[in-house]
Amino acid sequence: MRLIDLNADVGESFGNWRMGNDEVVLAIVSSANVACGFHAGDPQVMAKTCEIARRNGVSLGAHPGFADLQGFGRRPMPMSAFELETLVAYQIGAFMGIAARAGMPVAHVKAHGALYNLAEADPEVAGAIARAVKAVDPKLIMIGGTGSPMEGAATAAGVRFAAEGFPDRAYADDGKLLSRKLPGAVLHDPAEAAAQAVRMVIEGLILTVGGKLLPARVETLCIHGDEPTAAAVASAVKLALAGAGAEVAALPRVLG
Amino acid sequence: MRLIDLNADVGESFGNWRMGNDEVVLAIVSSANVACGFHAGDPQVMAKTCEIARRNGVSLGAHPGFADLQGFGRRPMPMSAFELETLVAYQIGAFMGIAARAGMPVAHVKAHGALYNLAEADPEVAGAIARAVKAVDPKLIMIGGTGSPMEGAATAAGVRFAAEGFPDRAYADDGKLLSRKLPGAVLHDPAEAAAQAVRMVIEGLILTVGGKLLPARVETLCIHGDEPTAAAVASAVKLALAGAGAEVAALPRVLG
Amino acid sequence: MRLIDLNADVGESFGNWRMGNDEVVLAIVSSANVACGFHAGDPQVMAKTCEIARRNGVSLGAHPGFADLQGFGRRPMPMSAFELETLVAYQIGAFMGIAARAGMPVAHVKAHGALYNLAEADPEVAGAIARAVKAVDPKLIMIGGTGSPMEGAATAAGVRFAAEGFPDRAYADDGKLLSRKLPGAVLHDPAEAAAQAVRMVIEGLILTVGGKLLPARVETLCIHGDEPTAAAVASAVKLALAGAGAEVAALPRVLG
Amino acid sequence: MRLIDLNADVGESFGNWRMGNDEVVLAIVSSANVACGFHAGDPQVMAKTCEIARRNGVSLGAHPGFADLQGFGRRPMPMSAFELETLVAYQIGAFMGIAARAGMPVAHVKAHGALYNLAEADPEVAGAIARAVKAVDPKLIMIGGTGSPMEGAATAAGVRFAAEGFPDRAYADDGKLLSRKLPGAVLHDPAEAAAQAVRMVIEGLILTVGGKLLPARVETLCIHGDEPTAAAVASAVKLALAGAGAEVAALPRVLG
Repeated sequence: MRLIDLNADVGESFGNWRMGNDEVVLAIVSSANVACGFHAGDPQVMAKTCEIARRNGVSLGAHPGFADLQGFGRRPMPMSAFELETLVAYQIGAFMGIAARAGMPVAHVKAHGALYNLAEADPEVAGAIARAVKAVDPKLIMIGGTGSPMEGAATAAGVRFAAEGFPDRAYADDGKLLSRKLPGAVLHDPAEAAAQAVRMVIEGLILTVGGKLLPARVETLCIHGDEPTAAAVASAVKLALAGAGAEVAALPRVLG
Repeated sequence: MRLIDLNADVGESFGNWRMGNDEVVLAIVSSANVACGFHAGDPQVMAKTCEIARRNGVSLGAHPGFADLQGFGRRPMPMSAFELETLVAYQIGAFMGIAARAGMPVAHVKAHGALYNLAEADPEVAGAIARAVKAVDPKLIMIGGTGSPMEGAATAAGVRFAAEGFPDRAYADDGKLLSRKLPGAVLHDPAEAAAQAVRMVIEGLILTVGGKLLPARVETLCIHGDEPTAAAVASAVKLALAGAGAEVAALPRVLG
Repeated sequence: MRLIDLNADVGESFGNWRMGNDEVVLAIVSSANVACGFHAGDPQVMAKTCEIARRNGVSLGAHPGFADLQGFGRRPMPMSAFELETLVAYQIGAFMGIAARAGMPVAHVKAHGALYNLAEADPEVAGAIARAVKAVDPKLIMIGGTGSPMEGAATAAGVRFAAEGFPDRAYADDGKLLSRKLPGAVLHDPAEAAAQAVRMVIEGLILTVGGKLLPARVETLCIHGDEPTAAAVASAVKLALAGAGAEVAALPRVLG
Repeated sequence: MRLIDLNADVGESFGNWRMGNDEVVLAIVSSANVACGFHAGDPQVMAKTCEIARRNGVSLGAHPGFADLQGFGRRPMPMSAFELETLVAYQIGAFMGIAARAGMPVAHVKAHGALYNLAEADPEVAGAIARAVKAVDPKLIMIGGTGSPMEGAATAAGVRFAAEGFPDRAYADDGKLLSRKLPGAVLHDPAEAAAQAVRMVIEGLILTVGGKLLPARVETLCIHGDEPTAAAVASAVKLALAGAGAEVAALPRVLG
């Protein structure tokens, strides 16, 4: 039976501000990317998110981002490799502290927002993240795009890597995500996202906007929780995967 | 031979701002209390501080404080036990992430500033800190005043405790530190501080401002790095202890 | 015709986080207390809030608070008079900069959260706020409780003062607000709040929980926007005041 | 007699962290660029800086920067025109609030660090700054490079502009500052800086690293306070200018 992980960004509230619908999202996914207090989240939000994840049997991951709360970590900030490495090590460690308090292990790391985007394009950024992951805990799994600099960096650092697919995002003919600035970049139709999920997981293929079929390896699917259609898309994806014979499982089990 | 730890607050720079003289202080002490980014420090400063500590063979400790950079963690902020516990767990974990990157273990935790002061007076605050320490890593040692709520909380939580003495601070007749607002609260004379250190460590006694001799148990002496006379005081203390037959050693060795 | 101002806290979103329902609240009130970026709000949120206020013909006020975003300015932070004065002057000025960009004047200042509460109890805190208001712009009006240290401080500093009443809060027999920790502290029933508003504005009386009738002078009523029942309460208060012959007007017109 | 302004960045301390030598620098220059709390400075530091400026008869300017304390505003952060405009309006206003408390007017605005650099290269960024300056107070003077996008933006917005020269920086043959990454970018020799200042102010010329003489108009010279040689350079520049018949005066007088 084909195993597939579903991951989602959670714990993005801050202080008195609520964001997302973690109770709903964590009832669906198998892995939680928990904001670590730099772009979102705070120690209390992180601790509460761990509790919700525990109740739902969801595996925990750190979701480090740039130190830009007001910009939600979506503005790239030029930093040296040393700065990036310590930025990420700090946040992974902080989350491990909070998770330990909840008696839970941390299984993976997924970079957030502009940090993720930079790492998908720049091997230096990807390398800094991978080295931080390796240094803090060599058993951690790093999530990134198949064939991206992050995969290369993880391999080079000796870090286990999980290739990520986006069921609700359109892919350009070069295999990359279609820019969010272009129409049709986000698939709001649950059926369309579900079909893309099955195609990726079961057939190992991506259908691009130009009609090309590209080979794809995915070990985890990114589920968005912040769109109004998010829960519907996530449920449809999960149901379709089950119908196609895949089983949703957390990353450590998927990677064996 | 009597073993005694010397601890000092370090890593208190932030971004482009320098504070303290970590190179000098870390050449003297055996344990470093490293600021964790909330009241001072940042991921890069923390990483550099670990390197200096490593070069000097100094044992590392987390130095968590209130999230008040502008006030340097010296303003008490009322927080619930849950808030305090997660505040501390986050910072310990963050420092463990940075220390792990440097390949170094974290041996102890000492609360900073207003958080330390509250914990010396309020068992609820002390309890929250002790539970955070225990949860993140039960091998960590917690530093606090002898007989203070922190000692009680550490014992209750099953956390090893190290009793701290202040060689350069005057003690009131009730055995507590004389308020810094009173004249003579800080001993700037290296000889005076050295004599107090020997009295505490070798004789197990504190001489109060009123001339009383109180029994004292100390496993670690707090060395201040931020006064102009700090290095002279620290050196004098260390020399006098050696002369009196004590050996400076990091906390794990002192506690056995 | 009796004139009365209605004020509400708005602009409490931050970055990507939304809070409150400013569109609804600003369609009801005559004065807006706009968060200044320390406990909530940011330059963009402040600018957008000014635009909504302008469309609704609402008068602007600065709503300075403690620099504690995560705690929403609700944790008291001990500060000297100099620190408080500059804290408040900074935030008033910042809001005047944003309001000037929108081509709008700033008419009043109302302290937020823990800063308001401290100023209602401590003449030193109230004095620092009043001096800041006076220094930044002597035409500004300061809002506070009738007969509170804030009124005394405003008078001493030569700052115009507007006495505030709370139609949806119960009053203790000493004329102070009943603690939110006690049952019945918040009047969720629109009819009850409306009756209290009319009693305060038209009759100049407060009915306490113990059944006492105390004389009250109010120039502005505080309308809460963050409770689920807020809009209903605000509408009922406004309607009842109109029915009783009062006219809602912004503070500068109320004070003449 | 030729009038020339000397400006310097000051007020760059934060909380307990000291930076720069404002007492020395403000005894030399005629205009102070005061950090506004986003990249450096805080309300108390700003207020104290105003006092030092007042004692020295120095004219005040706001020195807005990116909201990146840890990076000291030296990391460019991509922001929309609306975001930049409100970012700058907020900081100018905040400083006007603090200056008003000190009874002092604010005469100019100079962008800091990465914000200045972006505005020297990108007309959209320059335009956002100029519109913010104009909106907050149309009498404010904006400092930037001669012929830069900032000059164009100031002119378009109807804001008075002061062209800035750098006596202690080498100029490339295109008239721009030589990158700090290249050797010889900073002139540490007081005599060399003094000669360059006289050449700029009295002769209206810039001598480039390639030996070209370019026409230059300067109304203000930037004096750096953060290099070890800063005070020596500044004094030499001032003395040489006096010897060459120029008089140091604050910007409002220089621009007439």
